[in-house]
Amino acid sequence: MSPKITTELLRQLRQVMKSSRYLTEPIQAYIVPSGDAHQSEYIAPCDCRRAFISGFDGSAGTAIITEQKAAMWTDGRYFLQAAQQIDSNWTLMKMGLKDTPTQEDWLVSVLPEGSKVGVDPFIIPADQWKRISKALKSAGHVLVPVKENLIDAIWMDRPQRPCKPLMTLDLSYTGIGWKEKIAALRAKMVERKVLWLVVTALDEVSWLFNLRGSDVEYNPVFFAYAVIGTDTIRLFISGDRMADPSTREHLLLDSSLEAEFKIQVVPYESVLTELQAICVGLSPKEKVWLSDKASYALTEAIPKAHRYLTPCTPICIAKAVKNAAETEGMRRAHIKDAVALCELFNWLEKEVPKGSVTEISAADKAEEFRSQQTDFVDLSFATISSTGPNGAIIHYKPVPETNRALSGNEIYLLDSGAQYKDGTTDVTRTMHFGTPSAYEKECFTYVLKGHIAVSAAIFPNGTKGHLLDSFARSALWDCGLDYLHGTGHGVGCFLNVHEGPCGISYKTFADEPLEAGMIVSDEPGYYEDESFGIRIENVVLVIPAKTKYNFSNRGSLTFEPLTLVPIQTKMISVPLLTQKECDWVNDYHRKCREVIGAELKSQGRHEALQWLIRETEPITKMH
Amino acid sequence: MSPKITTELLRQLRQVMKSSRYLTEPIQAYIVPSGDAHQSEYIAPCDCRRAFISGFDGSAGTAIITEQKAAMWTDGRYFLQAAQQIDSNWTLMKMGLKDTPTQEDWLVSVLPEGSKVGVDPFIIPADQWKRISKALKSAGHVLVPVKENLIDAIWMDRPQRPCKPLMTLDLSYTGIGWKEKIAALRAKMVERKVLWLVVTALDEVSWLFNLRGSDVEYNPVFFAYAVIGTDTIRLFISGDRMADPSTREHLLLDSSLEAEFKIQVVPYESVLTELQAICVGLSPKEKVWLSDKASYALTEAIPKAHRYLTPCTPICIAKAVKNAAETEGMRRAHIKDAVALCELFNWLEKEVPKGSVTEISAADKAEEFRSQQTDFVDLSFATISSTGPNGAIIHYKPVPETNRALSGNEIYLLDSGAQYKDGTTDVTRTMHFGTPSAYEKECFTYVLKGHIAVSAAIFPNGTKGHLLDSFARSALWDCGLDYLHGTGHGVGCFLNVHEGPCGISYKTFADEPLEAGMIVSDEPGYYEDESFGIRIENVVLVIPAKTKYNFSNRGSLTFEPLTLVPIQTKMISVPLLTQKECDWVNDYHRKCREVIGAELKSQGRHEALQWLIRETEPITKMH
Repeated sequence: MSPKITTELLRQLRQVMKSSRYLTEPIQAYIVPSGDAHQSEYIAPCDCRRAFISGFDGSAGTAIITEQKAAMWTDGRYFLQAAQQIDSNWTLMKMGLKDTPTQEDWLVSVLPEGSKVGVDPFIIPADQWKRISKALKSAGHVLVPVKENLIDAIWMDRPQRPCKPLMTLDLSYTGIGWKEKIAALRAKMVERKVLWLVVTALDEVSWLFNLRGSDVEYNPVFFAYAVIGTDTIRLFISGDRMADPSTREHLLLDSSLEAEFKIQVVPYESVLTELQAICVGLSPKEKVWLSDKASYALTEAIPKAHRYLTPCTPICIAKAVKNAAETEGMRRAHIKDAVALCELFNWLEKEVPKGSVTEISAADKAEEFRSQQTDFVDLSFATISSTGPNGAIIHYKPVPETNRALSGNEIYLLDSGAQYKDGTTDVTRTMHFGTPSAYEKECFTYVLKGHIAVSAAIFPNGTKGHLLDSFARSALWDCGLDYLHGTGHGVGCFLNVHEGPCGISYKTFADEPLEAGMIVSDEPGYYEDESFGIRIENVVLVIPAKTKYNFSNRGSLTFEPLTLVPIQTKMISVPLLTQKECDWVNDYHRKCREVIGAELKSQGRHEALQWLIRETEPITKMH
Repeated sequence: MSPKITTELLRQLRQVMKSSRYLTEPIQAYIVPSGDAHQSEYIAPCDCRRAFISGFDGSAGTAIITEQKAAMWTDGRYFLQAAQQIDSNWTLMKMGLKDTPTQEDWLVSVLPEGSKVGVDPFIIPADQWKRISKALKSAGHVLVPVKENLIDAIWMDRPQRPCKPLMTLDLSYTGIGWKEKIAALRAKMVERKVLWLVVTALDEVSWLFNLRGSDVEYNPVFFAYAVIGTDTIRLFISGDRMADPSTREHLLLDSSLEAEFKIQVVPYESVLTELQAICVGLSPKEKVWLSDKASYALTEAIPKAHRYLTPCTPICIAKAVKNAAETEGMRRAHIKDAVALCELFNWLEKEVPKGSVTEISAADKAEEFRSQQTDFVDLSFATISSTGPNGAIIHYKPVPETNRALSGNEIYLLDSGAQYKDGTTDVTRTMHFGTPSAYEKECFTYVLKGHIAVSAAIFPNGTKGHLLDSFARSALWDCGLDYLHGTGHGVGCFLNVHEGPCGISYKTFADEPLEAGMIVSDEPGYYEDESFGIRIENVVLVIPAKTKYNFSNRGSLTFEPLTLVPIQTKMISVPLLTQKECDWVNDYHRKCREVIGAELKSQGRHEALQWLIRETEPITKMH
């Protein structure tokens, strides 16, 4: 990997930073954050502005360019990659290390007195704006919103914003029609006494209208905003997409309809001016609901007295709690996904010994098997297919330069998933195609114990996910091992593979309590630098639990695995398991054999069925 | 318990709220928070203003009085007590219930337009001020600081602020002299680039100067502030206490001394004006360090640009990590405390069957045995001595109206502790003097499993206490049981029995990571309303652990119990324990027998020694 040469680009950007064409007054620094105007985790090529200006294309990072300097902040996952991708014009700022200054401290230390720092107000979340603005102000500088994006001004071959066709989802997939969703949303708005709700997250717009898109890789979403009033619905979207008859019919655009469900289709770009116009008409005490993670531009458009900001919109919570149709869809998706993986692992067992399978070809084969399944749409993220030392790189994605052949001498870790029209999957299995060492088995078994501890946990209603994180680590901790990532994230239903507002992590964010119907991942791991990586991940559904005393009728919850793919028993050191853990493994494998076995049979995949039967043989603890 | 009649008091207060003697303009509401000017948990009688105006004397609650209404906010621990203590002039606001308005929402709903709400700026913490002020402002009202406390204005027989003699602690107790502590503190100030540090918490002042007092019940502290500069020390304290020769000598007040260690003794009341004077002299960028929990008055005295606020002062952290002398002192204190409890339990076993022991007399007897021990100073909190249904009231304190006789038919819970000159104790044991039921034993055993799970937990350096909380609940959760309080709190060394900045709780506050040398309690419980209460509490020391793989040299931690009092094996359902848990109990009891046995012997307490030996017989798990 050679760095991108950015000398000329930086020169141009610095010129634009002084240009009266874009600015009333020159700015002395320009901030280029990672995200898009919807604060998405995955972004479209046209929004990869930080990658364009710097060369660094990891998923997290902020670039700041001053008249003399250029600096790039990123976190531990990307220190190595960023160092390889940026040239000597840039200083790498390693976040999380003690001596690394924050963006605001660095700015204060390098800026001449009374400087102006610019940023695109649509890209920067309001809370970040506030933090940086405050720090700059107290040092005599000022943060200014620059309406035209200055990267776009110098990005000659910038790709167009995607505007791909939409897909409509009927009730058999969504369980609830969009009119019903809007009615429920309005009930929440009445409860909170707000008149308007601004929907900025792409997956929330998709979920609300039962539409899907493909504007962003892996995420079946499309560029749009929505503004819901008590008797109006505005959908901000590039208009030509509304020409499609099935979309028009789905949204009832041409039907005679109760006025409050009439959707006004408004151009995507006009969201700010429309929102400003709405706010002009507000009486005192009338409020507009917005996520506190929304952009500075939209937040500022609502006068402070009218803002109602929460960490979570009601859509975010409603979307997280899957209804019966969504749960059934997720079950179907996971059955199909398991079929594909049984085929893959059976194929790998035969092919790996020949020496011809690489990380890339294994990933491709996984995609091939998945794409054979009904309603397959896309992968749900870039497949992590890693063997030996590559497995220790948690966010590894095989590329030709690092591609490694699978062999009988190394652990293989596959973290992959897909989008089916009925659900989203995300599964990790760690396999050995030869004979694992005692140490590898020991580590694998601790990870498995952690996986089981979470999966089998029983906890009272109202418990937040972060309280379960340590269950996943306890067996590792006892031996002085740990992993440096969270244990689980929310999973969308034919939506983003990472979604809020719940998760299982040692980091305590403002997570909502777990509720029956929520779906999260359970994925502890262990990584031995330069040697191997282990992770065992199932997607699990939160379900009511039966307990002896039922928390004085407070009720209790536990998890049911939706992922039904065998966990390689060859990797387990059975004596390290308790009898209860052995029983869990055997029960899980019995269910895999039953459910996935039946599906393999009906799909006529007899060889994979034989593999499944072999891999789900019960384990026995000697007494 | 009959309510306090407050009609006349409220009339007087409402008059004062309009009086030009105290106010330039009338106020329409007055807020009376719980605390004192140091945001102490335990307060002196002169600071019990909320109890005076309302009659409600629980440890947590806020009163708000408007021209027409009076309302009292308190939490679940006190719903019953508050309802009994306040008269019909008051509305009880049950915090945590869905329909209870916040103080600011309630104010907005009842105030006439453009109202002024007053509060004593020394009593209200800055963060609470900010929250309430913001909410009032956005509704067109204003929060104003009222310098003279309006409760004091109508409180005719208000007790004087205590000003009891000080006690000096020498190096054998403190390990570090006060000059050395100040030097270390100044090093931290240099590191953070602050010029001044304001010490507002009473236990921080006590710890810093190696002094103790008795101004507040149970907490060996005294009313004082300190302001530490880079070469000055100001101690704000009522002056006559500095007349005592041993205090003068301890603080080197009459010695020729390096200028930077010369203590200026300043009247307690002048802290605000002195701080304002200091701030006037600050150059730009010069900062003053203050806890973000300090009062609004002190926070406001520092211009915003000069404020350096953190959740934790460096003293708070230094105080939490006990040095060798403090740890040894805590060990000694816990040995003496265990001797007293062995005597007590031996005495109870003989006396309870006679029917003459009550909750109050048992608590008195515990205090009597403790007071026989060397360096005993006081109890460390009001003894919770509760039998049968009273045990289910978590913050129960026996009073004549509720006093119950101990018997062979009910569970007895004793949560008690003492201040010794060398350390602070806090221990809970749950006993049965007859034959416990199978259900009582089952619940006790789950609580014990939780206690052991925390006590034996191994975790990497840098782990925050809240990540261990679920370990204490897991066994209870599995059966649908839980307890509605945290699992542990920091414990001071001959200081407050509750101290920050670490703890073990499902509530995630801004806790600091656990470090070797910190001391916390481990106290899971189970409470069956109207029936019984169970709690098992040890004070435990954070120590380095040895693990097989040692977290790639990150290092690991575990706990060592300082409390060495037998856990009643009669209450244990042994089949519910794992072999490891059995071993833990037997190891713990072996240590109790060894260490406390030796002390009982040397104190000539032979009968209690026999009791100890009986109570520490190993338990055996049948196979």
